[in-house]
Amino acid sequence: MELYFSPMACSLATRIAFYEAGYDARYVQVDTQNKRLSDGSDFFGINPLGQVPVLRTDEGALLYENGAILPYVADRFPAAKLAPVDGLERARLHQWLGFIGTELHKGTFVPLLDRNAGDEVKRYAREHVALRMQALQQHLSPREWLLEHFSVADIYLAVVLNWARYCDTDLSPWPAVLGLLKRVSARPAAARAFEEEFALYRAEQARARA
Amino acid sequence: MELYFSPMACSLATRIAFYEAGYDARYVQVDTQNKRLSDGSDFFGINPLGQVPVLRTDEGALLYENGAILPYVADRFPAAKLAPVDGLERARLHQWLGFIGTELHKGTFVPLLDRNAGDEVKRYAREHVALRMQALQQHLSPREWLLEHFSVADIYLAVVLNWARYCDTDLSPWPAVLGLLKRVSARPAAARAFEEEFALYRAEQARARA
Repeated sequence: MELYFSPMACSLATRIAFYEAGYDARYVQVDTQNKRLSDGSDFFGINPLGQVPVLRTDEGALLYENGAILPYVADRFPAAKLAPVDGLERARLHQWLGFIGTELHKGTFVPLLDRNAGDEVKRYAREHVALRMQALQQHLSPREWLLEHFSVADIYLAVVLNWARYCDTDLSPWPAVLGLLKRVSARPAAARAFEEEFALYRAEQARARA
Repeated sequence: MELYFSPMACSLATRIAFYEAGYDARYVQVDTQNKRLSDGSDFFGINPLGQVPVLRTDEGALLYENGAILPYVADRFPAAKLAPVDGLERARLHQWLGFIGTELHKGTFVPLLDRNAGDEVKRYAREHVALRMQALQQHLSPREWLLEHFSVADIYLAVVLNWARYCDTDLSPWPAVLGLLKRVSARPAAARAFEEEFALYRAEQARARA
C-alpha cells in the first residue's frame, strides 16, 4: 500500500497504524500548500480536494478520508488488533472517528491552524473547544482508551490533539485528554512516526523559507 | 430502536433510513436550541455535545454520530440494502460519510446556518464550497448514486444538500449534485420524512415565535 502524506498532517495517523502493524508501506510526500508532488505533478489529479491522506490499495484503488482509511488499514492487519471487527464496538469505532473528524479536526483545529483564517473565524472555532474537550474528558476519565482496547481511533485522536500546541490551545484543563495523548505518544510506533515526520516537517519549512 | 431528533436536522437521515427499511422506530423530539426534551429534562444528559442524532439501540446503548448510526441502522436491515456489507465498497461508504460529515456538514453548512456565526465565519465557509461541490460533481456526473447502489450515504448527502436553500447557496452550478438531491427526495421514504419533519419544523418555529 502507498500513503500520500504531508508531514505532521492527519495522514500521520495512518503512518502510525502501519508502524503498529509492522508494515513497510510506500510513502509519497505531498506539498499541500502548493498541491504538488515532489516530481512537480498536480496533486489535484490524485485527490480533487487536494487533501491528505490518500491511500493507494494493493489493487490500485485510491481511498480517501481518515474515517475510511484507518479502519481499512486496521482490517488488513488483524494480528495488530487496531480495531474491533464487528458489533456495537465497531459502531463505536466509527462514532469516535466521526467525533474526531467533525468536532476536533474540521471544526476546531483546521480553522485554528489555517493561516488564511481570520480572527473571527478562529474565535468561532475556540468557542466550541471547551464543550468538545469536556465531553472527551468525561468519556476518558475512567478509561485508558476511547474503546475497550487501543485502536486507530486513539491514534487519530492523538495526532489531532498534538496540533493543540501549535495553535495556543492549552489542554491542561482536561487531564484525561492530555493523558490519552501522552499514552499514544509513548508507544514506540507513534514515537518513531512523530519524530520522523517532525524532521520532515522542519525540512519542508526550511525549504519554504529558502 | 429510539431516535433523538430535531426537525430538519441531520437526524432526518436516520428517519429516512428507518422508513426505507419499513421499521417503526420511536422518535423523541429534542429542542436543540434550549437543549431540552419535551418533558423539560436536560438533553446534555443524553449527549454531552447536545447534538442530534442519538440512537438508543434495542439493548439500551446510546450511539452518536451520523457516520456510526447510519451504517448501524443499515446493518440491522440487510433486506433493505442500505449499505455495502464489506470490502472496498464498505470502505467507500465510510469515505463518503466522512466527506459529507467533515467537508459539507461541519465545514460548510453548520457555520452557514448558525445564527451565532458572524459574516467573516460565513465567508470563510463559503470560500470552500466550490472546491467541495466540484469534487462531488466530478464523482456524480457519470453515476446515479455515490456508491454502486443506493445507500445511507446518499440519504445523508441529500439531507445536508437540502439545507443549501436555507443559507442562500445555489447548487445549480453543479447539476449532478442537484440531481442526486432530487433522486433521493423523490423516493417515497424520503418524501414522507421530509414532509413530516418540515411540518414539525414549522410548528417548532411557531412555538418559538409565540
